[in-house]
Order: sequence, then C-alpha cells, then structure tokens
Amino acid sequence: MVITIVSTVELPERAREMLRNYNVELYELPKLGKDDQLNALSKAEILMCWCGKEFDLVSNIKSMPRLRVIQTFSAGVDHLPFTAIPDNVEIYSNAGAYSIPVAEHAWAMILTLAKGLHKPVLNAREYLSNELTSPRKISESTLLVLGTGGIGREIARIGKEGFRTYNIGINRSGKPAEYFDEVHPTSRLLDALPRADIVAIALPLNKHTRGLIGERELRALKHGAIVVNVGRGDVVREEDLYRVLKERRDIRFGTDVWWVHDGREEIPPRTPLTALPNFLGTPHIAGGAQREIAENAMIRAVENVIRYVRGETPMNKVNRDDYV
Amino acid sequence: MVITIVSTVELPERAREMLRNYNVELYELPKLGKDDQLNALSKAEILMCWCGKEFDLVSNIKSMPRLRVIQTFSAGVDHLPFTAIPDNVEIYSNAGAYSIPVAEHAWAMILTLAKGLHKPVLNAREYLSNELTSPRKISESTLLVLGTGGIGREIARIGKEGFRTYNIGINRSGKPAEYFDEVHPTSRLLDALPRADIVAIALPLNKHTRGLIGERELRALKHGAIVVNVGRGDVVREEDLYRVLKERRDIRFGTDVWWVHDGREEIPPRTPLTALPNFLGTPHIAGGAQREIAENAMIRAVENVIRYVRGETPMNKVNRDDYV
Repeated sequence: MVITIVSTVELPERAREMLRNYNVELYELPKLGKDDQLNALSKAEILMCWCGKEFDLVSNIKSMPRLRVIQTFSAGVDHLPFTAIPDNVEIYSNAGAYSIPVAEHAWAMILTLAKGLHKPVLNAREYLSNELTSPRKISESTLLVLGTGGIGREIARIGKEGFRTYNIGINRSGKPAEYFDEVHPTSRLLDALPRADIVAIALPLNKHTRGLIGERELRALKHGAIVVNVGRGDVVREEDLYRVLKERRDIRFGTDVWWVHDGREEIPPRTPLTALPNFLGTPHIAGGAQREIAENAMIRAVENVIRYVRGETPMNKVNRDDYV
Repeated sequence: MVITIVSTVELPERAREMLRNYNVELYELPKLGKDDQLNALSKAEILMCWCGKEFDLVSNIKSMPRLRVIQTFSAGVDHLPFTAIPDNVEIYSNAGAYSIPVAEHAWAMILTLAKGLHKPVLNAREYLSNELTSPRKISESTLLVLGTGGIGREIARIGKEGFRTYNIGINRSGKPAEYFDEVHPTSRLLDALPRADIVAIALPLNKHTRGLIGERELRALKHGAIVVNVGRGDVVREEDLYRVLKERRDIRFGTDVWWVHDGREEIPPRTPLTALPNFLGTPHIAGGAQREIAENAMIRAVENVIRYVRGETPMNKVNRDDYV
C-alpha cells in the first residue's frame, strides 16, 4: 500500500531523496494548483506542517478523511488547534531539531548580558560600577535550566563542559537528566530559583507551564541573576516580568520568544519591556527562522515520518492531555 | 637572611597571610609616608608592581640598589621600561593569572557578534538578512587562536568542549598545545587566516607581535569572520583595521584592548572605529580592572614570589630579548 504524505511547504531536496527509498507518494502543496491540493489532502495519511500561518489546520482538517499522523516541523506544538484534530490522529513534534542553535543563542544571550555587552560604554569605571553592565563571572556559577529536553540538556552541556557550571534542572517529575548535577520537579521551582546565578527557560508551552514564571518566581531570583527565555514567551507572565524588571535593575533578562495574542506572537510586546535597559530581545530567530537550521529540521521531521512508514515507532509523540 | 619585598599597591589580606610563613619583610607603599617609602625601596630585593600609572619605575629604579626581582601583577609586561632596568634584575610576569575571566570575555564578544546581539533589531526578516546581525553558527566552526599561552588555551578549551570547534593555534615556534587540533608558527599565519570562522587574538605585545595583524592579514579573513582581540591593541594596526572594517562589513570585530600612545591606552581610539556598526568595544575590563579578579591575580603573583623566597624557580620569567 502506498502511503500518501502531504507537506504544506517545499521540502529540501535531500528530504525528498530520502523518501524516494520508500513506497510513498509525496505532495508538496506550494507546487500544486488548488484542485490538485484538494486531491492530495483527500488522500493524505501523513501531514507534515508548521501548522502556523502557512496552513490553517482548522479549515483544512475536513478535507483529510484519511489523516492518521501529523508531524510538525516545529519543536513546540502549543499553537496546534488540538480540539479540531480527530482523536485517531497521532501528533508528533520535532522536539530536539533545534537544540544546538537554540542553546547557542541562549548562551550568546547569557554571555552578552553577563558581560554587559548589551550596553557597553567606553569608560571603564562607569562600565564596572554600573549595575546594568558590571561583568558577572560565569565560570563555576550555578546554572538553573527549566526543561531538560533537547534544548535544556544542550544548554546544560555547554555550561558544564564550557564553563564548569553547577547545573540544576527542573522538569515535571524531577527525573535525572544528563549534564545535570541535580534535577527537581516543577513543584520545587521556588527553592531552586534563589540558588541560581543564571536561569535558562527551555520549556515547551502547555497547560502545566503556561504562566509558570510570575511575580513570585521572579522576586525569588538571586541578586544579579541573569535570566534567558528560549522556550515560549507565555511561560513567563508578561506584566509580572515588566513590573519586576523595572524595579529590580540587578536582574538582566533576555528573550528570543514573545507573547501570543490572538494566535500571533507580538513583537514588540504589549508592555514597554524593550525600553528597559536590563532587557535584551531578539525576534524569535534562534531556531527555525534561519534557513539552514529550518532545512535540517525538516530533514529530521522526514526521518521521523520514515519511522512511521517502516512500521517503527516515531519519536516525540505528543500527549494531548498536556495541552487540552 | 630576611628578604625585603616592596609592593606598590596594598595586597589582599590573604596574600599578606601567605607571606607571614616566610622570613620576609613586606612593605606596601600606599601605607607608608614619603620617608618610609624611600627606606623600604632602599632595602627592596623584590618589587611587586603593576609598574603602570601607580609606580614610575624609571624615576624610582635608582632608589632600589638591592633589587633582584620584579614581579608584575599584570600578565603583559609590554609597558615596562626595559632599558632602565639593570641587567641583574630578573623580571617575572603574571601570565595565566587572568586566563579564565579574559577567555570568558573573549567568548562573550564572539557570541555577541556571532548572534548579532551588539545590534539587535526586533524585525526578524531584517535581523536575518542584515549582514551586521545575521546569526552565525558556532558549533563545529573553525577557531583560530593567536597565542597558545594561558588565555589562548582557555579560549581554545571553551571552544572545543563547549562548542565542538576545530582549533588552529598560532605561536612562535609552532609547538603543539593542549586543546589545539593544529598549531603553526607565526610565519604561517597568512595560510591559517582564510580557514577560520572565528579568530581570537591572545598574544602578548612584544617586538615579534607588534603590528602583526595589518591590512594584508585582515584582508585574508574568510567572508563573515568574527575576530576578537583580548591580547594587546598594538598587535593590530589601528589604521589598517579601520580601513578594512569600514570596507568589509562582513567582518565583525570586537576588542577589549586598545592602542597605546605616549604610554597611555587611549579609549576611544584615534580612528573613528567605535562608530562602525561591525565593531564592538569594551574599555579593557576583561581582567585586572575587576577587583575580585585583580585580588586573585595578586595572590598568584605572591605565590610566584614565594617560589623565589624558597629558593625555587619562579614561573613566567620574562625574556628581555623579546622586548628590546
């Protein structure tokens, strides 16, 4: 039996090549006219998509009666319209596909903030005495990583191997993870925060993590803490963040991810965060926005789909209960 | 025989404590009146100094007839008035004392420049398409380090262990060094430069390295190279640097060290470098300007002096021929 795969975007040539070894029919929607698109969807057993702006899953789901698998190109699946997806459709994320570039970006923000390179001045006395720029030591500091998945583990690895950090991890169950000296369950977050010199947020956004970092958590931070978010904006409460950062100039905060309103990540955000001197923002460019990285991620998504085609168990099955 | 040590600055309490175990007399000049200072100098066998602005070695050398050892607190000794120092005085530098913080600063500048964090904009398309900010991949890139001493080796270590870089080193003889995949002699610099994604300059300033990086070397850089200097400003030719950076916007250059005119490191420099968007500067704050780091370095200098007191061979003996 031929398996029909529909991709909502053009795949890199290397990904198409990989699929040629299997008994599949691949349709790439941007290459098709309207009628052929509908025909492809009507046969689709596997849908590969960002399922963001490029493809409206809600309005298209009825055109795919044979759909069994959704494989996202994105690592996060928080934007999926879960209630519109039939129960018999399995969803697989692309978790881990962006670990290396996103962890690099996290460390770039950490070091930029730690050494005052977001606001450098040429007067040494001013540089060293100003709370916004005075250099912080990284070596042997304590690094707290929220989320011990692909990105979180790579952030921890760079810390430990590059800068000899002491690593504390937070995940849902508190189960140990490579490169972490300690891991605690989310319920112990408030105990861990005051111990950290550096905090890196690398959590997926789901019903357990939405709004996890609020005023109480931010106020629990050690004096002079560096915090970066490369997970999802809405893990942090925006208003709380603005209020605490405005008051506590000792905290330096960097983010590549922003808050979603009406299904859209709004940059700049609704609060005047970007005007604060202890805030550093980049427009969600650490991962998939870069072409080379996106192409590698697509190839990885195809590898996972091939597992399904071969009758193996794909990786990164999404548990809908985490989202609905 | 009691050995007299004169320090031109107050030492940290821990350093004084260490010396109490030995048959030495310690004089700290800032604690003494004018007459007592002259008396201390007249007995000095060992002088510990920055020998920069705080103590004019030229005018004071005649007051120290018993001087046998100069131990600097600084890692570099390029500022010493070598011709004024009698031949029978041995000079020891504090090389290695700043390796960790300076290498951290070098990596902070590398990552800031690589990810465009020196000029972040909030529009993703602009961020990614602008030659000044488009993110560069660090992982598995080729890192060229000029100088394989304490700082250079630590820069190489962070690259290799943190970011899996391929490391090429340059030193005078080309002798192998830890954390380097290849080391070549200075004479092969022009062959190495076009291979590097990242170049870190961690050379001492001496007659062999002054002006080593000029227009020809800068023009040999790979398209999109990141270059940082944490050695000494005058290893790079300022006018050449300005000219090439102005033309080649693809090169991103960061420096913590500046050019010396009339014995003074001038910040800002004489050329309008700091106005260039592909230039990032910090006012020589990576190492000794930070108090905690300076105190650790002083303790290390005292440890070296103790080697002399015990009749052992101190480390980091300066070869005057490199400077005169």
